[in-house]
Amino acid sequence: MANDKKMVEQITSMDTDFAQWYTDVVKKAELVDYSGVKGCMIIRPYGYAIWENIQHDLDARFKKLGHENVYMPMFIPESLLQKEKDHVAGFAPECAIVTIGGQNKLSERLIVRPTSETLFCEHYKNIIHSYRDLPKLYNQWCNVVRWEKTTRPFLRTSEFLWQEGHTMHENEEQAREETLNMLKCYEDFYRETLAIPAVTGRKTEKEKFAGAKETYTIEPMMHNGVALQGGTSHYFGDGFARAFDITYTDRENKICYPHQTSWGVSTRMIGAIIMTHGDDNGLILPPKVAPIQVAIIPIAQHKEGVLEKAGEVRDILANNFRVKLDDSDYSTGWKFSQYEMKGVPLRLELGPRDIENNCCVLVSRVTREKKVVSLDNIAEEVEQALAAVHNELYERALNNLSEKMSEARTHEEFLDIAENKPGFIKAMWCGDSECEDQLKDETGGVKSRCIPFVEEKLADTCVCCGKPAKHMVVFGRQY
Amino acid sequence: MANDKKMVEQITSMDTDFAQWYTDVVKKAELVDYSGVKGCMIIRPYGYAIWENIQHDLDARFKKLGHENVYMPMFIPESLLQKEKDHVAGFAPECAIVTIGGQNKLSERLIVRPTSETLFCEHYKNIIHSYRDLPKLYNQWCNVVRWEKTTRPFLRTSEFLWQEGHTMHENEEQAREETLNMLKCYEDFYRETLAIPAVTGRKTEKEKFAGAKETYTIEPMMHNGVALQGGTSHYFGDGFARAFDITYTDRENKICYPHQTSWGVSTRMIGAIIMTHGDDNGLILPPKVAPIQVAIIPIAQHKEGVLEKAGEVRDILANNFRVKLDDSDYSTGWKFSQYEMKGVPLRLELGPRDIENNCCVLVSRVTREKKVVSLDNIAEEVEQALAAVHNELYERALNNLSEKMSEARTHEEFLDIAENKPGFIKAMWCGDSECEDQLKDETGGVKSRCIPFVEEKLADTCVCCGKPAKHMVVFGRQY
Repeated sequence: MANDKKMVEQITSMDTDFAQWYTDVVKKAELVDYSGVKGCMIIRPYGYAIWENIQHDLDARFKKLGHENVYMPMFIPESLLQKEKDHVAGFAPECAIVTIGGQNKLSERLIVRPTSETLFCEHYKNIIHSYRDLPKLYNQWCNVVRWEKTTRPFLRTSEFLWQEGHTMHENEEQAREETLNMLKCYEDFYRETLAIPAVTGRKTEKEKFAGAKETYTIEPMMHNGVALQGGTSHYFGDGFARAFDITYTDRENKICYPHQTSWGVSTRMIGAIIMTHGDDNGLILPPKVAPIQVAIIPIAQHKEGVLEKAGEVRDILANNFRVKLDDSDYSTGWKFSQYEMKGVPLRLELGPRDIENNCCVLVSRVTREKKVVSLDNIAEEVEQALAAVHNELYERALNNLSEKMSEARTHEEFLDIAENKPGFIKAMWCGDSECEDQLKDETGGVKSRCIPFVEEKLADTCVCCGKPAKHMVVFGRQY
Repeated sequence: MANDKKMVEQITSMDTDFAQWYTDVVKKAELVDYSGVKGCMIIRPYGYAIWENIQHDLDARFKKLGHENVYMPMFIPESLLQKEKDHVAGFAPECAIVTIGGQNKLSERLIVRPTSETLFCEHYKNIIHSYRDLPKLYNQWCNVVRWEKTTRPFLRTSEFLWQEGHTMHENEEQAREETLNMLKCYEDFYRETLAIPAVTGRKTEKEKFAGAKETYTIEPMMHNGVALQGGTSHYFGDGFARAFDITYTDRENKICYPHQTSWGVSTRMIGAIIMTHGDDNGLILPPKVAPIQVAIIPIAQHKEGVLEKAGEVRDILANNFRVKLDDSDYSTGWKFSQYEMKGVPLRLELGPRDIENNCCVLVSRVTREKKVVSLDNIAEEVEQALAAVHNELYERALNNLSEKMSEARTHEEFLDIAENKPGFIKAMWCGDSECEDQLKDETGGVKSRCIPFVEEKLADTCVCCGKPAKHMVVFGRQY
């Protein structure tokens, strides 16, 4: 039959060409397809199911913290975007602009939202009047557009899907607390759901969000040592509130400006999953977001009773897990490779001899260890095996992060590591953005990732200029 | 206190001014806010929560029928939209067009998707090769833009949220079956979840979707007798497949064109809920999509033990229902009006005497009947009461639909009903679109809604021209 000829296609080895490996994985695991629209991707069912699982988990976390979902228009009138000057300066270069509507030239051009601070502020002005109206804890799931010259699926596309939280608070203290709480929410999600460890901290002045007073970031490290900005949380102070004239009457009957935050994560996280956990056999998905958690592969499925028993096991497991029984006529070897490539965390093999012994074989996608387990308590066995996969993935990623974390005490050491060792570099910094620029130029792209919450004192002086150091910074190349 | 002064604001009576009643309800129940972007609305938390409940229910129905979710780009290159000539002719007048990206004039203009047939076809061309690749049963949840001159929240806005299913099949029979199955899926959803009855059937040639061979529609009737096109399902034949050169090798190794469908419902359904079920006290929400299903109002809440007991009842009910205990310091009367206005299906009153008697009072938002029930099996009582609200809503809407359904056997009768009696009109029709045009002109807007699946034979001749009749058509004014 035609199908038997079709083999699992080869994936380029990570060590040979990491970029090509990434492209092979996203295409061959059927996560995305390219579209005729420059810089925009098609998210295919297997990729979109990962996003749905991410949304489901994160949305529950947000709601538990008291947030409500809303939906704002996708268009921003140009004059509205211009109300906060730092903000418009940051986004103007990457805007897509609608100039024609209903066959007429528009009197005011409309920006396709690159982010929605300005729209939320316009709405907040209408609905915030008293301290009783605060806090406002709003979030939206939507698409945004930032025009990009060079694009890669999930990592950098002109259109992407994300969530953006926008909150308003009575005072600085509460807004700052929200900013940090949401960064923690992301950190927990990365660790507990995606099995991804990360460096977290505050962005330097140069790297923060356009219009923000502070930007906090979560920076996981990809398998090749390159950073991915995995999510950000911003404290705005009352800058936007002043620009948009949003005021409220406080508990002492005084007119005040509320304090604001915003925070977001995007489909980029799927890129982080691929590049943190994947290997030369393809994708490895953390169990909590895997569209298929267990692939049941019947062995010698033509033999009497095999498919029947496999069906029973599938039905038992389907109560608690996302499970797929593959009874197609592809060869067993092809099936093994296929589900490995698609990153299914656990394979369950079941053949005639297993059935005789009332057992089956569980195979971890991470360690490839085989474990014979009884069918009597298969649901518990699978639960434990999936938890083990999650932990194995996290430990492996944590080891990678530790191994590729270097310290530089001198300028020469910094340049040497930047050239010869992939990964992050901890180094002291004077606080001057010119030093960041110089280090970036000298290394061809190593930038400050963040100032971690807990700083070590590696030296007294800036690794670049030698002046007194103010902070320890984690540097690294980025996607 | 400041809050005590705030009263539930008056809503214009339906009979006085239905349009103003609608506007009052959407604003005062805090479903939407107007934005500075012409024709675009802000969906506020209470409105968006209804949409989330709708999505959750429908998405499960789609998946149960084997559909998978995907995400296509929001931009369509102009040349792509033009590939199917009927389709582009239908949508060109209402497109929003991006002409600038990243500060440069684009070499090809991008249409903000009004619908995504063309994008799905471009993708299907890449992924459909063999009969083994069929059927493809894809759906996406997204925003679309159709430039509108006059807009009303939920009913007609330049941007709206919807789902669009796009499927490909081996042959006409399977595609036609899908088209009708999905209309049935919508009909079930309207009846079972929204408690809305409707007329369903096939659109006339004049009213069908741009590029479709057949369009099927679900047409609920609003309280004032006006129709709302509540959802459509289209059979395309192989027209798009030919235009996009999508072919597959069939079971006999022949090259064939697949047959296509699409189907969609939108945030418009929230407009249908408001105008089908609402009354002069405000919104009435069907229990299955109500963000709050039960509002617990403590009576004499300052008395010892009242709030404590109310909290216990809330905790019990929260296991199965979306419940809110309002222990704010607003007056009891204000709370009653507030939750009535917001359409909460069930009110639970609990005061000191109720607690002594181990009971509480349940009040239906529809009938306003009060029922004293024991606290011993409160979860069951609430479940029954909510089911009763659903049934009451459905029966009431069905009565409205029956009462406002007329039959016209002559031209004069048609014009008389159109002028004097709100609602739908059944009448015979020759099949000629000129008669549809004439009836619409003569009545100032009564159009054919659909040819129902079961036609009656009211007369032998067309109600307009007197020639032999081909079909019975349901006519009506529309939103």
